[in-house]
Amino acid sequence: MTTGWGMDEDNRSTMSKRDLLAMIGRTAGATAMYMAMNSLGQAQASTFKGPIKLEGAPKGQSVLILGAGVAGMTAALELSRAGYNVQVLEYNDRVGGRSWTLRGGDSYTELGGATQHCQFAPGNYINPGPWRIPWHHHGLIHYCHELGVALEPFMQVNYNAYIHDTKKFGGKPQRFRHVQADYYGYVGELLSKSVKKGALDDAVSKEDGELLLESLRSWGGLDKNFRYVKGRESSNRRGWDKEPGGGLSAEPIPSDPMSVETVLRSGMWRQLGGNLSWDHESTIFQPVGGMGMVAKGFEKAVGHLVRLNSKVTTIKQSDAGVTVNYVDTKTGAKGTASANYCICTIPLPILAQIEMNVGPDLAAAIRAVPYSTSVKVGLEFKRRFWEQDDKIYGGISYTDLPNSQISYPSSNYGATGPGVLLGAYTGGTAGYELTAMSPEDRIARVLDWGSQMHPQYRAEYMNGISVGWHRVPWVLGCFGQWNEETRASHYKNLCAMDGRIMLAGEHASYYGGWQEGGITSAIDAITRLHQHVLAS
Amino acid sequence: MTTGWGMDEDNRSTMSKRDLLAMIGRTAGATAMYMAMNSLGQAQASTFKGPIKLEGAPKGQSVLILGAGVAGMTAALELSRAGYNVQVLEYNDRVGGRSWTLRGGDSYTELGGATQHCQFAPGNYINPGPWRIPWHHHGLIHYCHELGVALEPFMQVNYNAYIHDTKKFGGKPQRFRHVQADYYGYVGELLSKSVKKGALDDAVSKEDGELLLESLRSWGGLDKNFRYVKGRESSNRRGWDKEPGGGLSAEPIPSDPMSVETVLRSGMWRQLGGNLSWDHESTIFQPVGGMGMVAKGFEKAVGHLVRLNSKVTTIKQSDAGVTVNYVDTKTGAKGTASANYCICTIPLPILAQIEMNVGPDLAAAIRAVPYSTSVKVGLEFKRRFWEQDDKIYGGISYTDLPNSQISYPSSNYGATGPGVLLGAYTGGTAGYELTAMSPEDRIARVLDWGSQMHPQYRAEYMNGISVGWHRVPWVLGCFGQWNEETRASHYKNLCAMDGRIMLAGEHASYYGGWQEGGITSAIDAITRLHQHVLAS
Repeated sequence: MTTGWGMDEDNRSTMSKRDLLAMIGRTAGATAMYMAMNSLGQAQASTFKGPIKLEGAPKGQSVLILGAGVAGMTAALELSRAGYNVQVLEYNDRVGGRSWTLRGGDSYTELGGATQHCQFAPGNYINPGPWRIPWHHHGLIHYCHELGVALEPFMQVNYNAYIHDTKKFGGKPQRFRHVQADYYGYVGELLSKSVKKGALDDAVSKEDGELLLESLRSWGGLDKNFRYVKGRESSNRRGWDKEPGGGLSAEPIPSDPMSVETVLRSGMWRQLGGNLSWDHESTIFQPVGGMGMVAKGFEKAVGHLVRLNSKVTTIKQSDAGVTVNYVDTKTGAKGTASANYCICTIPLPILAQIEMNVGPDLAAAIRAVPYSTSVKVGLEFKRRFWEQDDKIYGGISYTDLPNSQISYPSSNYGATGPGVLLGAYTGGTAGYELTAMSPEDRIARVLDWGSQMHPQYRAEYMNGISVGWHRVPWVLGCFGQWNEETRASHYKNLCAMDGRIMLAGEHASYYGGWQEGGITSAIDAITRLHQHVLAS
Repeated sequence: MTTGWGMDEDNRSTMSKRDLLAMIGRTAGATAMYMAMNSLGQAQASTFKGPIKLEGAPKGQSVLILGAGVAGMTAALELSRAGYNVQVLEYNDRVGGRSWTLRGGDSYTELGGATQHCQFAPGNYINPGPWRIPWHHHGLIHYCHELGVALEPFMQVNYNAYIHDTKKFGGKPQRFRHVQADYYGYVGELLSKSVKKGALDDAVSKEDGELLLESLRSWGGLDKNFRYVKGRESSNRRGWDKEPGGGLSAEPIPSDPMSVETVLRSGMWRQLGGNLSWDHESTIFQPVGGMGMVAKGFEKAVGHLVRLNSKVTTIKQSDAGVTVNYVDTKTGAKGTASANYCICTIPLPILAQIEMNVGPDLAAAIRAVPYSTSVKVGLEFKRRFWEQDDKIYGGISYTDLPNSQISYPSSNYGATGPGVLLGAYTGGTAGYELTAMSPEDRIARVLDWGSQMHPQYRAEYMNGISVGWHRVPWVLGCFGQWNEETRASHYKNLCAMDGRIMLAGEHASYYGGWQEGGITSAIDAITRLHQHVLAS
């Protein structure tokens, strides 16, 4: 049984509790089951509650879904399984929305009219949108498994990748392992000092203090005197000046840690915490062949329900149902689609421009959420110099330059021939500035920046492609950005059913910017829709 | 250009230095180049110096190599390329030695006569020997790339795997992420307290103390008051009681950290440091399809030079050359092989029993190195319950039970049908005890232990196979275990050329137990052999 919540503590002894929950789920639907789970203390994990099963006849009802991203396709898949008549309208000439992969032969035209033709060699790609699937994105992983989308590890942390600050170390990039090992080492040494001084006698007992000392020595790579100094222990963390080897001349030579002042003043410790965060915990996946494979997986299941190239112009609801007008973007022909209900996954910056008769609360919510800026730039080089020269296999290097990150491919390690890396993944002011440039200027800028970390850039560069999300015509931004205030004022209104219309998508979730938000919001929306239909 | 040493700081400005080194390498050989590198301050990384090129005619010399593990095959590959006449004798009916994968259909007979028939379903396997390839094993990665051995990430760290102690938490396994996040959080909180109290004013300046505080807050998941308490910051490290989701009912619920006493007294922090060590830093690889693919890669290149099923009985050298007697283990026929020189990679517990005329220093060294005990047990289950129920995708769980570790497969994530995990990887006393049992008893014991972490074991178990290395007839142990004393007394003698014989293998390296030790020792040995031949 695949479930979204953590079964580890329950599946040994509480079968009767689980049977009870399953029964509630079968009879009263997922929300009631979830509420019961809460009261039974079981709601320990995702709001994705496993393979949804909408029980009870839909009474011949129809649902029109707007947008064929992961939220829309999840809704289409589950509603059609439950017996609803489903149609999906999609603006693009492909399904998937932001779950999108650019490969050689693809073209992309941004707002302003510039068209880029991707020239990557076969097998190379970038994901302009989402690129990572953390282990706890239970909904997305469920559908990947169900739809035959193969997953492989995404390398988030690479100890041999770089941290780069133009103002530190003369601009010379530092290895992640040196920064982390030295930071941990000095944290361990300084805390050991405090414990030994008795400075923490009010916080930990003598016995616990001894345990703490023992732990710091083993964790921090400290020597027997609880110092982080050049030697076997520290080099067994940060690496050696001369690595161990075989035969004569095989003895390793320890490396010199930086000083504690150097570590602290470098500011490079800022890059350590992110890898420990919920979103970036290992195991993290990516689909084999790019995130667009998720779209292809859904397409196999529900592609026949989707009308592509359909630009929605008006959304009207009445007591009888919902009617949507659209224009075929290829032929200019106008069309109309109608259904009893509508699940609308159109991104808010687009939806705010579409004529739609909803109540003032939902209308206000639609206009309340700004969208994050974000830019990604993919660069193709003649060879994988980052692997061959720098021994960086996957993972991310960080820089204070506006490109912010360089991410190396987490697939086909050791491949010869051209390789593609992500030369920029940036937002904020830098994101706006890059988006404002022409595609050619963006590439030129990103090559300038990246060559400060990888001087091989100049000799090895072949071609590149960029996506500045505020120029993507069908989103006008990267993802919905909530803050505490807008969340309190507008979130529930955005998600609530308005007559016969309900919104879904990452913007209607607490996982903003992640596909899991789109999927869990779709499941939540169709569950409520189904309850409404059964109650009507 | 693929090189083993770190080029990051040198490849921008020191081409002339590199040209000089290359020239030294071409004219004087690898060792001279390495010495020059040292004096130029470049010897920053592995003792693997990139693709070896033995320059100069070998004058029609022949080399007999004993053992077709990675050390022997590396020597065979490079010596035959340099023009030597090479023959390899191998005891087993396959190449690879400990670089070995057990799949369905394989049989293995251990010392004592028990034969196990591996019943795994197609695609499932265990690696009884080495299973991981860290990014800095430059020699092995070089040969994998050259020989077409595809690599995929090995998942060393999985935040959702377990740490299990039968005497803590009522024997209930804890998630790695809870232990690590809480330990880091309290380390951050306690060190912050010390800094604020001024207890470290003698160690860090006021300005650096402020930086340290800022760093601890971001790294440790502390709140704005530098406390590690239930809330968004701590749950963004350890995970949520109810994870974020979409739609209504999507708001996450923070989880409760353990107390600092609980964390320290659990002792589970003992499992954190290992993942930070040089050997276990990400990126780590495994060959697609098992470690045996490394052997198959070498086999394609040098398999024609290998005589299988050849048990060496005597090794004799004279001024003229080396003569080895062997017995064909299938036919019982006796044979003799001769060459000008011999590279002997036979594991020391076997070699110590073979009649061989070497000097007293080498003879003493051969007898001085005990071999590590180690046992691995692979278990096949009807389904991947660790993924489906426990949301553990690859990685390792740790336990205080004698099986020590459970490692989940780092491939084919999400596969349906039977799955194989490593149910035990243990050594020391537990290793000897398991090795002493019959294969059936080992499996029974490991199922008992593992079911305390994964109760699904009982219902899902299908079959299993075990390898206790002290019962492996062609090694009699897992790998050579040096200590400081034996290293000082015997290591150089073990590696030094004795007449016409030179030893190689992981036992002749500082990377004991790793294939990289075998490869770098082989490179070192044949480089010295070649220098000797050119000088003779």
